[in-house]
Amino acid sequence: MNNKLTIIKIGGSVITDKHTPFSVDLNAIKSIIGEMKPVKEEKTIIVHGGGSFGHPVAIKYMLSNGLKNREQVKGVVETSQAMLSLNKIIVDMFIQEDFPVISCSPHNIFITRNGRICKSFLYPLNYFLEMGLIPVLFGDVVYDTERGVSILSGDQIVSYLSIKLKANRVILGTDVDGIYSSDPKINPEAQLIRELNPENYQDILKILKSTTKNRIDVTGGMYGKVRELVRVAKHGIDIYIVNARTPGNISKILNSSDINCTRFKNWCKR
Amino acid sequence: MNNKLTIIKIGGSVITDKHTPFSVDLNAIKSIIGEMKPVKEEKTIIVHGGGSFGHPVAIKYMLSNGLKNREQVKGVVETSQAMLSLNKIIVDMFIQEDFPVISCSPHNIFITRNGRICKSFLYPLNYFLEMGLIPVLFGDVVYDTERGVSILSGDQIVSYLSIKLKANRVILGTDVDGIYSSDPKINPEAQLIRELNPENYQDILKILKSTTKNRIDVTGGMYGKVRELVRVAKHGIDIYIVNARTPGNISKILNSSDINCTRFKNWCKR
Repeated sequence: MNNKLTIIKIGGSVITDKHTPFSVDLNAIKSIIGEMKPVKEEKTIIVHGGGSFGHPVAIKYMLSNGLKNREQVKGVVETSQAMLSLNKIIVDMFIQEDFPVISCSPHNIFITRNGRICKSFLYPLNYFLEMGLIPVLFGDVVYDTERGVSILSGDQIVSYLSIKLKANRVILGTDVDGIYSSDPKINPEAQLIRELNPENYQDILKILKSTTKNRIDVTGGMYGKVRELVRVAKHGIDIYIVNARTPGNISKILNSSDINCTRFKNWCKR
Repeated sequence: MNNKLTIIKIGGSVITDKHTPFSVDLNAIKSIIGEMKPVKEEKTIIVHGGGSFGHPVAIKYMLSNGLKNREQVKGVVETSQAMLSLNKIIVDMFIQEDFPVISCSPHNIFITRNGRICKSFLYPLNYFLEMGLIPVLFGDVVYDTERGVSILSGDQIVSYLSIKLKANRVILGTDVDGIYSSDPKINPEAQLIRELNPENYQDILKILKSTTKNRIDVTGGMYGKVRELVRVAKHGIDIYIVNARTPGNISKILNSSDINCTRFKNWCKR
């Protein structure tokens, strides 16, 4: 087993239907697990999003604004348990395929301050990796020192862990081919941006900010993702945003083959 | 809400049949949850045992001796996920009854050295309590700095947390009325010891050590429990070992009524 760490995020939009609460796409999960075989015995962390399990409950109780009344405590209970339900389905399916996975619930590991991780307990996670285990984390509701609670996105977890644990590559599986010049679901003229670099990223962030509005995602959509990933890229870590719904994409990228995707390139290590 | 902390342990033998793997006693859980209403809005931590979910897998892979070969990693995966499955059933049932519970998996919170907790991350747990949430923990497989892994019993978690978080009372729900002068399941003459105190506990520990042998429990049975609880009693914390299978016992003890049980008395605070 080599010592290179891969962090793979599977977006909530890939494994659930964000518009139908508590709907899980078992076939999508199964096929992605099959494509992950190249890292079964490698140092790997998997992070999944909330999709239709986390977001609707978090929105219902307005948890992204923090804890303001007693009724919202119910929202914390429901969001946390909904995410654990989704996580259980995913971890069980990985175990069926003989992956040495272990569920690691972020609300026990991270504390945020105004939505950003300010304290974490990474000892177990580190040791699990050394043991050959693959930790599986997820977007979660966590304690926030200023707001009471906050929604910690899978994207922020990926960004935090890849820097802290010095990941070698980060793969973000989404339901689009990568970053586009405009929203590809609305505009057929949208162009895939194959490379994000220090020269073009600020213009692209502006485009993303305007297209992210009105989406059912409490954690910021593609705009939020890119903001997180730029932090990672600045540490010289390879990043790929890929369409995890396209069969073969995950296994190809894990085997370093070229695919239609957005790659973060030419970011010198600070 | 008063600020007194109650820690309630529900033994694996109460909620599962230890002899039939993955068997859960839904009626027993439901009835215990019903009896816990007095602490629904109080500062409370719940810890449950592994019973037929945790012990058989831990035994199969001999995890209590630590990690000695690659095959055992599979045992870590299976034990951890089996315990999360049991925990999910229990937490879901608490939520149905409107308890503000949150699952807190010990393998993310504790690290042991030679089987004893040596490092922990209690910030989230503490904040959850302040928020009015009831954390639900369980016996689990955790990273051990000397052995690779160890089985952290629910009893040790109870003992550790009650001292660290300065609990006011600890209630251990088991499948017997308390501590007996010999094994009540074998010897009909066995006498219930209603009070454990600094004078009689060493003699009683000797008896328990001899009766604990050959039981299907990787965490030491009643002998292990009493050894843990003596540490707690020395901090002046009230302790009750009660039969959680007897209807009414849990609610009576939570309402400070007298029942047939073992109480730790007359331990001066060190």
